[in-house]
Amino acid sequence: MPELRKDPITDSWVIISTDRARRPSDFVRERTPREPSGRFCPFCPGNESKTPPEVLAYRNGSGPNQPGWSLRVVPEKFPVLGIEGDLDREGEGLFDRMKGIGAHEVLIESPEHALSITELSEKTIHHLLWAFRERLEDLRRDRRLRYVLLFKNHGEAAGATLEHTHSQLIALPVVPKRVQEELEGAKAYYRFKERCIFCDLIRQELKSRTRVVMETNGFIVLEPYAARFPFETWILPMQHKSHFKDAEPHSLENLAWVLRSTLRKIEKVLEWPPYNLIVHTAPLQESATDYYHWHIEIIPKLTRVAGFEWGSGFYINPTPPEESAQFLHDAGTC
Amino acid sequence: MPELRKDPITDSWVIISTDRARRPSDFVRERTPREPSGRFCPFCPGNESKTPPEVLAYRNGSGPNQPGWSLRVVPEKFPVLGIEGDLDREGEGLFDRMKGIGAHEVLIESPEHALSITELSEKTIHHLLWAFRERLEDLRRDRRLRYVLLFKNHGEAAGATLEHTHSQLIALPVVPKRVQEELEGAKAYYRFKERCIFCDLIRQELKSRTRVVMETNGFIVLEPYAARFPFETWILPMQHKSHFKDAEPHSLENLAWVLRSTLRKIEKVLEWPPYNLIVHTAPLQESATDYYHWHIEIIPKLTRVAGFEWGSGFYINPTPPEESAQFLHDAGTC
Repeated sequence: MPELRKDPITDSWVIISTDRARRPSDFVRERTPREPSGRFCPFCPGNESKTPPEVLAYRNGSGPNQPGWSLRVVPEKFPVLGIEGDLDREGEGLFDRMKGIGAHEVLIESPEHALSITELSEKTIHHLLWAFRERLEDLRRDRRLRYVLLFKNHGEAAGATLEHTHSQLIALPVVPKRVQEELEGAKAYYRFKERCIFCDLIRQELKSRTRVVMETNGFIVLEPYAARFPFETWILPMQHKSHFKDAEPHSLENLAWVLRSTLRKIEKVLEWPPYNLIVHTAPLQESATDYYHWHIEIIPKLTRVAGFEWGSGFYINPTPPEESAQFLHDAGTC
Repeated sequence: MPELRKDPITDSWVIISTDRARRPSDFVRERTPREPSGRFCPFCPGNESKTPPEVLAYRNGSGPNQPGWSLRVVPEKFPVLGIEGDLDREGEGLFDRMKGIGAHEVLIESPEHALSITELSEKTIHHLLWAFRERLEDLRRDRRLRYVLLFKNHGEAAGATLEHTHSQLIALPVVPKRVQEELEGAKAYYRFKERCIFCDLIRQELKSRTRVVMETNGFIVLEPYAARFPFETWILPMQHKSHFKDAEPHSLENLAWVLRSTLRKIEKVLEWPPYNLIVHTAPLQESATDYYHWHIEIIPKLTRVAGFEWGSGFYINPTPPEESAQFLHDAGTC
């Protein structure tokens, strides 16, 4: 018998379709390539002039926009938002609009033409997390901006257009809807219980252990109770923190290992699937709060039934999260 | 300069990316097949035994589950919800669940093995709309059910698994999230203005005419101001009605023509794209309300950036709705 489960944070229901439970091998997915295509790569060292000038780079003494870097952050060549100008909020009858002010940046994670972040060293991934923290600090000074979304599209089917491993950030003058829903749900819970719902959730998951993939002193990796997608995976810091930017340096070192290990498990069990990774943190201009808890969401792209879900907001997940947690857990240390 | 626009009903923002505005020919899409594959079809006359026994059929005197029908409604062979049993709502700490009670039915629109609903006669499409109305009336008697979602996945990339043209319905014990958001937004507007937001929207769109694709006495076809997807298209009845089931028979005749014409325009301009079609109506057990207005949403599947949008609820639409309205309008009478 299928089950309807409610996400305790956003209050939305999903169908967990236990009858047609699926094993990893049942999904028809596009595997991401394991060998480079050999096409020209604007992200490789020596091709710095093919991207807009860098806004941040970690390098050993070399000049800006020259080789010799270990990480580079550059504006996206075809940004979805522009950084110049005023918001010019205006209405027209029922409608409201503003200028598309914001930032769209690419974080080139490594000079190496690696096809997956899992091929990179822990230190390199730590630098990426640190660079995101630095960009958050910098973008926060722009009072027009309310949110910075860090995300990674891995594989063409997940929206990636270049194979050289990279992440992106979009800084927005509004808080995105899904984050807003999490904030509101978490706030309502806090008013009721005076506890962070994410902290309560971690405690409960550690007790039942049926959806825990792995844990360290610093982080827990779990499959959410009302997972919308098969093998949807969350990484949460054990210690309460609303903002990613407030994570301690040593905690980000631990996160680099946990993140790589989690993605390696996903790659092993699902055989290199396309995926999206998103960091959810509290809004840019808000101070630390007791009710929200930053975290990472990883969504492997395994199913196709997209438009129906887009139109209804109703998700059907063919893999119970308890099963996907078991598969990922059993993949061992990766 | 890109623009941020707010959906007046659900209050969510989208980026309309005017800089990289796209023409219909720019989308890399999977075209839906124009010729039958020749594979065995369980929906064709003579194969009635290959589906579960019908729950509704329009036929000329022949017996149930025999050839001689013009439309058949059958339970889905692999339903996402089961119809037997009690909801058994229960909690487990933070979590809430209930049994997956509901109905999942397939509406086989025609005995003809047509690959697109647009090949069918107006009369056949009218019968489909009427059958949906009948199923709504019947399912409403089951007090466990709160919502019936009628939808159509056209083409493999939009989730269709069989090519013989058909629609589906899922009856649910909860109201799906996106409909809930529309209901709440519309209710808030009504409290403020004592007018239906959809009626106001129709009035404003008819005045500006920049997003109107076509209109009849009964229906308006338009591209929504804050369209989440390129060529997202809505069909709304001109006259206020909260429930699809309250549509008059002659109005459904008009809708059959409007729907076919709209889909033919989309097929002509976008060259047979996959798409999803969803009917949004007020909840099953609620009586007629002044604040909600039933409508149809059509979402061609043209872009790939799915996971990021799923994770953030933030949509980037590369085609301004004014442009897509122009393309569809200029396609002429179809």
